[in-house]
Amino acid sequence: MTDLAPSAPRQRVLSGMRPTGALHLGHYHGALKNWVRLQSAYDCFFFVADWHALTTHYQHREGLEQSVYDMVVDWLAAGIDPAQATLFIQSRMPEHAELFTLLAMSTPSSWLERMPSYKDMVAENRELATYGFLGYPLLQAADILIYKAAFVPVGEDQAPHVEVTREVARRFNHLYAPLLPEPQALLTETSRLPGLDGRKMSKTYGNAIAMRDAPEVVAEKVRRMQTDPQRVRRGDPGEPERCPVWALHKVYADSDTRAWVESGCRSAGIGCLDCKQPLIDAIHDEQAPWRARADELLADPKKVHWIVEVGTERARAVARKTLREVRGAMGLDY
Amino acid sequence: MTDLAPSAPRQRVLSGMRPTGALHLGHYHGALKNWVRLQSAYDCFFFVADWHALTTHYQHREGLEQSVYDMVVDWLAAGIDPAQATLFIQSRMPEHAELFTLLAMSTPSSWLERMPSYKDMVAENRELATYGFLGYPLLQAADILIYKAAFVPVGEDQAPHVEVTREVARRFNHLYAPLLPEPQALLTETSRLPGLDGRKMSKTYGNAIAMRDAPEVVAEKVRRMQTDPQRVRRGDPGEPERCPVWALHKVYADSDTRAWVESGCRSAGIGCLDCKQPLIDAIHDEQAPWRARADELLADPKKVHWIVEVGTERARAVARKTLREVRGAMGLDY
Ligand code: SF4
Ligand code: SF4
Repeated sequence: MTDLAPSAPRQRVLSGMRPTGALHLGHYHGALKNWVRLQSAYDCFFFVADWHALTTHYQHREGLEQSVYDMVVDWLAAGIDPAQATLFIQSRMPEHAELFTLLAMSTPSSWLERMPSYKDMVAENRELATYGFLGYPLLQAADILIYKAAFVPVGEDQAPHVEVTREVARRFNHLYAPLLPEPQALLTETSRLPGLDGRKMSKTYGNAIAMRDAPEVVAEKVRRMQTDPQRVRRGDPGEPERCPVWALHKVYADSDTRAWVESGCRSAGIGCLDCKQPLIDAIHDEQAPWRARADELLADPKKVHWIVEVGTERARAVARKTLREVRGAMGLDY
Repeated sequence: MTDLAPSAPRQRVLSGMRPTGALHLGHYHGALKNWVRLQSAYDCFFFVADWHALTTHYQHREGLEQSVYDMVVDWLAAGIDPAQATLFIQSRMPEHAELFTLLAMSTPSSWLERMPSYKDMVAENRELATYGFLGYPLLQAADILIYKAAFVPVGEDQAPHVEVTREVARRFNHLYAPLLPEPQALLTETSRLPGLDGRKMSKTYGNAIAMRDAPEVVAEKVRRMQTDPQRVRRGDPGEPERCPVWALHKVYADSDTRAWVESGCRSAGIGCLDCKQPLIDAIHDEQAPWRARADELLADPKKVHWIVEVGTERARAVARKTLREVRGAMGLDY
């Protein structure tokens, strides 16, 4: 976090998330928590990347609207403040498509073909060898450049995408006019939250706890978690490092609780259900404010639509301005 | 030309032309003459393909506006009637870019990579290996499908582009909903007009007569034309088949004149300047109504802008409707 004088205009941060429906704790710890921290220091633009979702899931579009709004509710529940941040939906912004189309003209295909994400995924699934999926980093570049974002928070695997965005901006600035600032990657210490089975938490693996899972559901999911497979009976000592519950304790427990788990497990002084209770409590505590905010929002569904509406129009004003400048620089301003 | 009952709604024809500035006789005989014929039988949408121009000329954008309006004036001069046909500018239609982006998601790159135009031109010029140039047939598909055009007038070399458009439509209709009619190529007997040097008339070759070249300029250009190289002196007999003037007579002269040329040339009965005069006259006659209409338009430049404005809004209404349907079918109508 930079420390900006209160009077300095906040620099812009842009970040998008694909609409996968209700978010889980992995999304919160991996991205959303960071967004909440960023929103007070930066002029944050957060968007629902529904076109991006189509680049890989063009065949499954049912329930997209539900997914979009479930996700926005989760953002707001997590503490994203629409008075500080601008929230909008990509597919409502034809301006991104226009900039994408214009930037396409001067972007060598080779820049896109060499992206590791493209090569790896197409090797796995030929159905992905589409023009749209190939162009996905360029669409992302348009998403970023149209707002002249200074920073893009990314995990390390996405750093090449920011690099392509910088190249695209440089080429545009060189060919036409120095209009598009090169954004910088804001590398964030994202914690990859383990799921209920110890693998990365993911909807696909079925090992997730949703941000808005009801307390009983959370308790039940944790109670059913597999523990150290060598701790068969209550009296057997266990080893936390072999146990997915411990992986979650490392995120959720304070040092006292962690010490209690380690000694209690190794000495068989505590049972696994005893061990799980503080984790259940910690997740409940984390979820409580989310649930309160979500309940309030869901009592008035128009409110979420309105927040998105206002954000979309705020974003559109910025996008239109950039696009006017870009068209001008390209000689298309007639 | 089909013969439609007067009450049947006219089927839509879509055609675009890249803005290359003032058009020459080759453009008229190759495309524009055909457009004029089509406009009474079909609901014609004719557009300035300025984005397409950028796919190959992204580095040269100066004077684009001038080129666009010079071309539209030539269309109107040639007899395109804005009361019958809808004239508009591609870059003023972000709707095309949005449909292009949406169609990209389900279009295999391989369909585009195998286009002969792409492979040949990239082999000649590596600078063309851009994402935009690769996607050019897809952008063209969006141009066509967004108006649900029934027919696309094309020369034979463009037939593969219409075929890709049909494939893109089929795939969309199969994946989502049967919304996009497959357009048909309207193969037209386009005459490739020879230029002043016998090669195809082209601005690049410097062998063109502009549609609005002044009468003296036309006369001078024709008088300076190279003739049969073996007819050195007035008294030498010539052979029309070796002479570019004859190639133009074949387009412009009636059969009497052609007989007069053939016998006069072979018998040295006429001189080359004699021979050229009826050609000069024929071109003057062809140009006269164009010049009259152009003079009228240029006396009131706002009028051309207004015609384009009205056409653009008429096209936009159709484009928006299709796009709403497409978004709906893809589950993006929120
Ligand atoms: S006591 Fe805790 S850390 Fe040890 S095996 Fe049981 S659940 Fe895992
Ligand atoms: S007489 Fe006519 S056709 Fe013969 S060489 Fe001269 S210009 Fe050509």
